Amino acid sequence: MQSIRSRCSALSEHPYFTNIIIGLILLNAILIGFETYTGIYERNLNLFTYADQLLLWVFTIEIIIRLVGSRPLKSFFTEPWNIFDFLIVASGHLLVGGHYVTVLRILRVLRVLRAISIIPSLRKMVNALVATIPSMGTIMLLLGIFFYIYGVIGTTMFKEIAPEYFGTLHASFLTLFQVVTLESWASGVMRPIIAESPSSWWFFVTFILFGTFVIFNLFVGVVVTNVEEANQAENPSPTEIKLNQVQEELEEIKQLLRDQQAVNRTKIK
Amino acid sequence: MQSIRSRCSALSEHPYFTNIIIGLILLNAILIGFETYTGIYERNLNLFTYADQLLLWVFTIEIIIRLVGSRPLKSFFTEPWNIFDFLIVASGHLLVGGHYVTVLRILRVLRVLRAISIIPSLRKMVNALVATIPSMGTIMLLLGIFFYIYGVIGTTMFKEIAPEYFGTLHASFLTLFQVVTLESWASGVMRPIIAESPSSWWFFVTFILFGTFVIFNLFVGVVVTNVEEANQAENPSPTEIKLNQVQEELEEIKQLLRDQQAVNRTKIK
Amino acid sequence: MQSIRSRCSALSEHPYFTNIIIGLILLNAILIGFETYTGIYERNLNLFTYADQLLLWVFTIEIIIRLVGSRPLKSFFTEPWNIFDFLIVASGHLLVGGHYVTVLRILRVLRVLRAISIIPSLRKMVNALVATIPSMGTIMLLLGIFFYIYGVIGTTMFKEIAPEYFGTLHASFLTLFQVVTLESWASGVMRPIIAESPSSWWFFVTFILFGTFVIFNLFVGVVVTNVEEANQAENPSPTEIKLNQVQEELEEIKQLLRDQQAVNRTKIK
Amino acid sequence: MQSIRSRCSALSEHPYFTNIIIGLILLNAILIGFETYTGIYERNLNLFTYADQLLLWVFTIEIIIRLVGSRPLKSFFTEPWNIFDFLIVASGHLLVGGHYVTVLRILRVLRVLRAISIIPSLRKMVNALVATIPSMGTIMLLLGIFFYIYGVIGTTMFKEIAPEYFGTLHASFLTLFQVVTLESWASGVMRPIIAESPSSWWFFVTFILFGTFVIFNLFVGVVVTNVEEANQAENPSPTEIKLNQVQEELEEIKQLLRDQQAVNRTKIK
Repeated sequence: MQSIRSRCSALSEHPYFTNIIIGLILLNAILIGFETYTGIYERNLNLFTYADQLLLWVFTIEIIIRLVGSRPLKSFFTEPWNIFDFLIVASGHLLVGGHYVTVLRILRVLRVLRAISIIPSLRKMVNALVATIPSMGTIMLLLGIFFYIYGVIGTTMFKEIAPEYFGTLHASFLTLFQVVTLESWASGVMRPIIAESPSSWWFFVTFILFGTFVIFNLFVGVVVTNVEEANQAENPSPTEIKLNQVQEELEEIKQLLRDQQAVNRTKIK
Repeated sequence: MQSIRSRCSALSEHPYFTNIIIGLILLNAILIGFETYTGIYERNLNLFTYADQLLLWVFTIEIIIRLVGSRPLKSFFTEPWNIFDFLIVASGHLLVGGHYVTVLRILRVLRVLRAISIIPSLRKMVNALVATIPSMGTIMLLLGIFFYIYGVIGTTMFKEIAPEYFGTLHASFLTLFQVVTLESWASGVMRPIIAESPSSWWFFVTFILFGTFVIFNLFVGVVVTNVEEANQAENPSPTEIKLNQVQEELEEIKQLLRDQQAVNRTKIK
Repeated sequence: MQSIRSRCSALSEHPYFTNIIIGLILLNAILIGFETYTGIYERNLNLFTYADQLLLWVFTIEIIIRLVGSRPLKSFFTEPWNIFDFLIVASGHLLVGGHYVTVLRILRVLRVLRAISIIPSLRKMVNALVATIPSMGTIMLLLGIFFYIYGVIGTTMFKEIAPEYFGTLHASFLTLFQVVTLESWASGVMRPIIAESPSSWWFFVTFILFGTFVIFNLFVGVVVTNVEEANQAENPSPTEIKLNQVQEELEEIKQLLRDQQAVNRTKIK
Repeated sequence: MQSIRSRCSALSEHPYFTNIIIGLILLNAILIGFETYTGIYERNLNLFTYADQLLLWVFTIEIIIRLVGSRPLKSFFTEPWNIFDFLIVASGHLLVGGHYVTVLRILRVLRVLRAISIIPSLRKMVNALVATIPSMGTIMLLLGIFFYIYGVIGTTMFKEIAPEYFGTLHASFLTLFQVVTLESWASGVMRPIIAESPSSWWFFVTFILFGTFVIFNLFVGVVVTNVEEANQAENPSPTEIKLNQVQEELEEIKQLLRDQQAVNRTKIK
């Protein structure tokens, strides 16, 4: 048993193993791409079905090898990326059947995401991106409160005038998201509304001023945090090294002075 | 009297008190959200009315407790957030009546804003955001002058051609705000105008170049100020500490040398 | 003569003088604003005409006072802001007559710009903004070359398909400016064109990728230059002061050592 | 032979030579600009044809001079900008003939790009811009993976609802590019789709949130890298110089102490 485990571990860490999996993910991506062209897909229905089944089983075997190879079996599931890989592959087996065709298709596309968990530089980058999310927490809460308030006010005020944009609270949130991206906020959303209720321009202008101001500050905060961190990481290098040398030299000088004092003392004696 | 005051003070600072108020603000927010769905609101009219009254009175009692608990009574009103809370709740009592239904509804939504005054991290962030406004003063004045000039020119030139966009001075300001957000500035505003007055493209192009250039510099200024402040705040740490150590060591060396000189002098004597 | 000159100089530097001029510029701005409302203007035609003439003459006298007050008369024209003030006011006198009504109106609005030359903080900011323009020179030239190339290619390729957008070279430049601001570039400009010439999506996609990439680098360059300058300006403060103190102390120590050597030498002798 | 080579080398490095070529590139650009105005072009067909042929031959001679002037002949082709110049000019000769009129015209415009290879400051800037591309590699790969996944999902889900936008995989990519630039993403693309499939707003909202988040981080990364580099380049200056002086002084002090020790030792002896 131990020998199987260590063989699996060695195999799963072999560069060839990783490269073959990357290649198969790429092949999977290309196949899924061709499937969207209905003509090509229907002419080669069998090929696509068999290739998809084959790839799913290869990925299953890959996950099993990596699972068996991880030394306490549970340690495999402590790494979030492994859980992600496991769920992506497991869902391919579980959701077989006629009912979930669209869901299954989307899940099959998500297998391409496994490229992130396999390629180290991508995994590192996604980890770094995800790590910046918590620092945005408070500003996101603030943005959420203002979206909610403007959503309720917008629905109350414009429900009858513009049911397409502010008919319900969730429609209002979608419209506010559109407004904050500055897409057709005036030509599409505001101008038809102010044609009927001329004084309601303040709703859009204050929302845009507030929204862009907060998002802009979110941006500034992230830039400053990153510059600061980069500075701190880079700081020890040249000045620090020089200062350490200075301190060493001072220590030498003190030693020289103490030696001299000792000599002087012996002379006095 | 003193005992009531200190009890109120102790109560208003208790974490349970704050958490319950946060919970009630959230409940208030959810209720207001459901009210926008006319169907749900009309079927439960009584429930919504009673809940709203109840919450208003709970918030009133909360404000009274915090007001009584603040040691010189006036000190309560020195904190702007307390005045904000007071006005939000007081307006709920004052504006009762059939005439101000929409105003009252909007004011009721604003109670959600009290989440900012209650949650410390949000209050801190909003204070920080508000603190950045004065530093934008001069550039805002500059932007205002150019908006005014382009507004007057636009109204003078395009009043007849595009009354929808440049009919009056205030309509022009709204249009210029739309143009500076780059929303439909060409397809919606400029192209119909240059179809009649082909030489007026300069008005839009120079306004966009100028407007984005100034806003971009506003941005750069805020980023640079923040990076600078962050650097200054972070600076004392490693280099400063090292330099302080160096100075202490130099002091020691000087002391050693002075001792030696004293010894030498006594020897000479 | 000298006494008039010194009186003018004293007067032009008096804070009341500046504040009155700022007030009059504001009044001028408000009057020009009201003029755009045809109803108000026509009912008070005389008032507006007289007020405008009066303000023009007050500004003329102001310029004369400042001109006479500047000690070598020519030195007045070495400051660009003075030339700007002079031209704005002079043009008000020169362009009187029925032919230039619109030009005259626009020039009258430009008097509001004099607020910049009068208010020191605004003048400083505009000087700073103008100073950043030369550093953008090379990147602007690069942007110009690419605009020219895409303009010529666009005109050659789409002259017949979309005469509204690419009919002539200058129409193409305006369209490319619209595209680089991302305004209706797809819905308005590209999609109607690719409906007839499906392969020409590359023209728009590469132009946007290139244009935003260069503008983004322009942005980064300005941010970095500003951060760098701010760092350099702020640098001397804490570390530099400490290092200067260290150098002084080292000098003291050397002096102590030299004294000792001198003592030693005399002892040997 | 050697003398021809050295004459060519001297000629190609002469400032007049470069300035004349810059002038001819400018003339070429102006001619190409006028060619787009069909009226002007047809009236002066001969002039344009002869001028173009003449300029092509002048540029050919220029390239030959620079080619002959480069000391090992092959070294000319080690500089990418020389290869670029060579290809631009060579293609003008090779593609003569009726079949490639549009291609030839576009290639003739590209001659304007030679301004970049000739003007040193432009060449330096383009080199710097190109150098920033590799550092964007990983984030571009990440963006590519997400574009691919959303492209496949979009094609699968909206193929029937919106064939104009999501009919084929490549149409979907173009639409997603439009969406990520925020151009008519709601008014043009999303709203007609959610009118038929109301639950598919998540596709657009998550794509925009994800896309802008990644592009924003790409931006932050480049800004931070540049600030860091600028700091590192600027760092040696003031603090470093001071610290070097301090180290020299410490060396002097040590020397003084060693001298003293030597003196003391001789005294003891």
